[in-house]
Amino acid sequence: MGTVLSFDQYGKAENRVVRIYRDNPRHEIWDLNVSTALRGDFAAAHVEGDQRDVLPTDTQKNTAFVYAKKHGVTSPEDYAIAVGQRLIEASPKASGAQVRVEQYAWDRIDVDGAGHDHAFLRRGGAVRTTVVTLSGRNAEQLVRVVSGLRDLVLLKSTGSEFKGFLRDEYTTLQETDDRILATSLVARWRYAGTEVDWNSTYGAISASLLETFATTYSRALQETLYLMGAHVLKAHEEVAEIRFSAPNKHHFPVDLARFGLENSGEVFTATDRPYGLIEAAVTRDDAPEPGDAWLAVPSFL
Amino acid sequence: MGTVLSFDQYGKAENRVVRIYRDNPRHEIWDLNVSTALRGDFAAAHVEGDQRDVLPTDTQKNTAFVYAKKHGVTSPEDYAIAVGQRLIEASPKASGAQVRVEQYAWDRIDVDGAGHDHAFLRRGGAVRTTVVTLSGRNAEQLVRVVSGLRDLVLLKSTGSEFKGFLRDEYTTLQETDDRILATSLVARWRYAGTEVDWNSTYGAISASLLETFATTYSRALQETLYLMGAHVLKAHEEVAEIRFSAPNKHHFPVDLARFGLENSGEVFTATDRPYGLIEAAVTRDDAPEPGDAWLAVPSFL
Amino acid sequence: MGTVLSFDQYGKAENRVVRIYRDNPRHEIWDLNVSTALRGDFAAAHVEGDQRDVLPTDTQKNTAFVYAKKHGVTSPEDYAIAVGQRLIEASPKASGAQVRVEQYAWDRIDVDGAGHDHAFLRRGGAVRTTVVTLSGRNAEQLVRVVSGLRDLVLLKSTGSEFKGFLRDEYTTLQETDDRILATSLVARWRYAGTEVDWNSTYGAISASLLETFATTYSRALQETLYLMGAHVLKAHEEVAEIRFSAPNKHHFPVDLARFGLENSGEVFTATDRPYGLIEAAVTRDDAPEPGDAWLAVPSFL
Amino acid sequence: MGTVLSFDQYGKAENRVVRIYRDNPRHEIWDLNVSTALRGDFAAAHVEGDQRDVLPTDTQKNTAFVYAKKHGVTSPEDYAIAVGQRLIEASPKASGAQVRVEQYAWDRIDVDGAGHDHAFLRRGGAVRTTVVTLSGRNAEQLVRVVSGLRDLVLLKSTGSEFKGFLRDEYTTLQETDDRILATSLVARWRYAGTEVDWNSTYGAISASLLETFATTYSRALQETLYLMGAHVLKAHEEVAEIRFSAPNKHHFPVDLARFGLENSGEVFTATDRPYGLIEAAVTRDDAPEPGDAWLAVPSFL
Repeated sequence: MGTVLSFDQYGKAENRVVRIYRDNPRHEIWDLNVSTALRGDFAAAHVEGDQRDVLPTDTQKNTAFVYAKKHGVTSPEDYAIAVGQRLIEASPKASGAQVRVEQYAWDRIDVDGAGHDHAFLRRGGAVRTTVVTLSGRNAEQLVRVVSGLRDLVLLKSTGSEFKGFLRDEYTTLQETDDRILATSLVARWRYAGTEVDWNSTYGAISASLLETFATTYSRALQETLYLMGAHVLKAHEEVAEIRFSAPNKHHFPVDLARFGLENSGEVFTATDRPYGLIEAAVTRDDAPEPGDAWLAVPSFL
Repeated sequence: MGTVLSFDQYGKAENRVVRIYRDNPRHEIWDLNVSTALRGDFAAAHVEGDQRDVLPTDTQKNTAFVYAKKHGVTSPEDYAIAVGQRLIEASPKASGAQVRVEQYAWDRIDVDGAGHDHAFLRRGGAVRTTVVTLSGRNAEQLVRVVSGLRDLVLLKSTGSEFKGFLRDEYTTLQETDDRILATSLVARWRYAGTEVDWNSTYGAISASLLETFATTYSRALQETLYLMGAHVLKAHEEVAEIRFSAPNKHHFPVDLARFGLENSGEVFTATDRPYGLIEAAVTRDDAPEPGDAWLAVPSFL
Repeated sequence: MGTVLSFDQYGKAENRVVRIYRDNPRHEIWDLNVSTALRGDFAAAHVEGDQRDVLPTDTQKNTAFVYAKKHGVTSPEDYAIAVGQRLIEASPKASGAQVRVEQYAWDRIDVDGAGHDHAFLRRGGAVRTTVVTLSGRNAEQLVRVVSGLRDLVLLKSTGSEFKGFLRDEYTTLQETDDRILATSLVARWRYAGTEVDWNSTYGAISASLLETFATTYSRALQETLYLMGAHVLKAHEEVAEIRFSAPNKHHFPVDLARFGLENSGEVFTATDRPYGLIEAAVTRDDAPEPGDAWLAVPSFL
Repeated sequence: MGTVLSFDQYGKAENRVVRIYRDNPRHEIWDLNVSTALRGDFAAAHVEGDQRDVLPTDTQKNTAFVYAKKHGVTSPEDYAIAVGQRLIEASPKASGAQVRVEQYAWDRIDVDGAGHDHAFLRRGGAVRTTVVTLSGRNAEQLVRVVSGLRDLVLLKSTGSEFKGFLRDEYTTLQETDDRILATSLVARWRYAGTEVDWNSTYGAISASLLETFATTYSRALQETLYLMGAHVLKAHEEVAEIRFSAPNKHHFPVDLARFGLENSGEVFTATDRPYGLIEAAVTRDDAPEPGDAWLAVPSFL
């Protein structure tokens, strides 16, 4: 028997790249968390301790910052593709790269009803994400883009039920016609190609997820996720597939009858753990194969 | 020599109370994290293990939920005062109580340009806080209110300098005429009394903090904090004092000259640790004494 | 074009199950974080909102607690297998299940040189993990076990170099003959079967990882990981494969020459972000196929 | 009415100072998180934006690293005192300083039954802390030391009751003769002076806290805290006062009777929030006045 290095990747994670555009007094800010990784034939580094093919993670870090200036940032996706292409180009033994970007949103501070030129308030809430996976070199290079968001915290105070479920001898849950439904959504969608208006598509998909959540009746979080996914696929043919990881953040009604008070859906306790965890992928039936688009993507599957 | 129980308080921390108002189809949501504590003559519990004067923390929890219904929630401050008064009333040996509330903000989900009736998106960003300290019973009861916010993340991409500072043999910092100034602000202000429109005052003070940050030139974070405090005190005579804890979240310019590129305030790395930490209190010179208003208030002083 | 539910699983995550054995005065404690998920034909719940095949996540939670008593806990792996088998049995439409367990270690408190019978101190440090994936029903059921640990924080203050690496125009890193090497290791190993003495094997593999880290010279974290993996595979034929995710937790020497002091590997600053991230899998060349053993396993690949 | 700068301090927080002693092959490691702050007459910086008296936080950072070499680290307390004295000396307008240090413990990796010379495993669990507050200059300088620990997670699986408590109309808690008692202890003790063997005293007090927790019957967490404090004060006359902040980490027995199973203290669910929070200070009745020893000390009072 022998041992094989069956997979490896290496890079610099969580480079906190902040790019300010200040060509005119109205500044723009891109606040990014950038992680890069190279894949390929790096067995010599592992097995023989020979680093001659290893572009240091420190260099990958430098590249992330250099490209924020040299290439610039117009979207997380465009920037990530450029960084990934550069890393492969600089690393002869690399067969591929993965660049992950998270973007933190900032709003202009409101002064007298208008957004300030150079003072910003971090928005909080959902974080925009992208994972770009490149494989191959030069003309044969494939570029796969999985974009999404995380920490989109949603709640409906009615319009949600859960009943008619399977029961066994350990089932004690009561059926309910009306409950709070809340989640902290992670969604990732795979684009069919790269001819995409990244920013406007992100905005449209985010808005669609919110609107579907708000406007559809929920017979289970499962149904709500499927509807959210189906609506996105229907409206966006550039999207091949969408995946969700959705904790069911339980809000349990408090028993106030013990104290002579009625609680008709008014007082809840929000709990931390345990939580339901519903995961689902919805795919266009004519979607192109994912290849390595999801390889090493965190949080789901 | 003997030992003395020189201070004690006990209670239930982090009750996650969610109150939905659903009297009409347009629901309202108050999402609170409520911590209560009783103070007083509880030496018997500590020294003798005798619980006869101890209202259980479990009962304090029940009270927090009951009062969300019985008293209702119109503001964190009003609710906290009611809970605190009830706890003292139910606990004959209590000489005082402290009720801390954090409020998480939710926005209505936008559907066709209008906010939805019962579907919400958690805003993220700053959390509204209050710490209500009650001492004494009945007619002699004093109620002190310290409200504020935390995690208000602010950034200016210009309009900030730092120069002319003291130097010693360990000083290597370069002076700068133009830097990014960023912080994650904790602010707490003590009200002079309780005849306050809690919600509108919170809104006005929050807006003032933002506007001062945006519109004043900064020669140091110290100066900016002082200006923020002075502007609040000037506009709000109901505020006796305001305290700040402000990490200087450093954004260092990346040296791109090594790579033949100019970086004129365009590419920064945001660092986590260490960070400057600037703390300051600004007080009205005719402010009433704080008494125990700040006793056991976390995060500052 | 249509849409397909291409993957789904659902369950209850992070059940904090604490099992005390108290058959005699010398108590034993198993402190677990248990997450369960069912997979299978649950399209009706997603697409039609019909819950008739859905065993509630609340029931999965109850099952986790019931089995801590009814089946008992002798190891995370044995317990997880039992819970998974039960969940599939109770869910006719399930084709498989995944049960993830984390175990927090407790030491007996030392009193006069001996461990106390029923008073414990949480050890901190590494968390033992297992992910058990079951597929199929009854006689055809396959059980795959991936065990491991996370948050094993290791540091060598010498015996580590990094040099001879690839350089491009963005490379500024200096070569070093002597550096601190530190990581917070995540390791997961796939067992070839289930006839394993889970606890003693866990102990032996943990000890082997530590010993290899300590006793081998490191020409890169990549080499160290490979050695750790190879040593485990060599000594444990019951292990088919081992995977690592290892942040390179940088400790940079502080430039004290600016202050007339020499720093020969004595004073370092430990940084948070960015960090190198090295991931590798080492596999026995005659290992059985993994099947779905790694499907939806967090943290790596 | 005017506004007054009523308090201020500023410094560099969370410098991650790692000091390796390598004078012989058996290395030693001190892994510290160091926060410094200066107090004094810095109104010019706040009110006028004049930095001439402000020693930059960057210089404070440099000083923390320089002193790890120049002064060295033999204990958190000794090091913190030296750093504080230096900062006051370098800052003519400072009236005082506070230096906070946390120490992360590392064990030597065991190889063949012996601890390795230069390979370490981070212990996890409790973190040792100190807060040194200096006021005044030169001969009049007062040095006050508050040392302690945080995150000491303790659990007793029996030997704890809670009964005979006060009841009101919102009390639903059942009395119990036997429960799990668990906490994540924060303890801070104020030394009466500075003629202390810091390391051995820390070890003795830590051991005493554990032993008292283990060996005394608990009629409430309040009683246990008081006993822990009284035992420390009795054995350590160099300690003037000890304060505790102790969450009651609830472990609720799971109702298995619903499933025909008995649960006699065997299966529990550990909950996150809410939690009881018990805080107490025990003081020697002839203790010297604390002065500013507790000013701005986080976590309690």
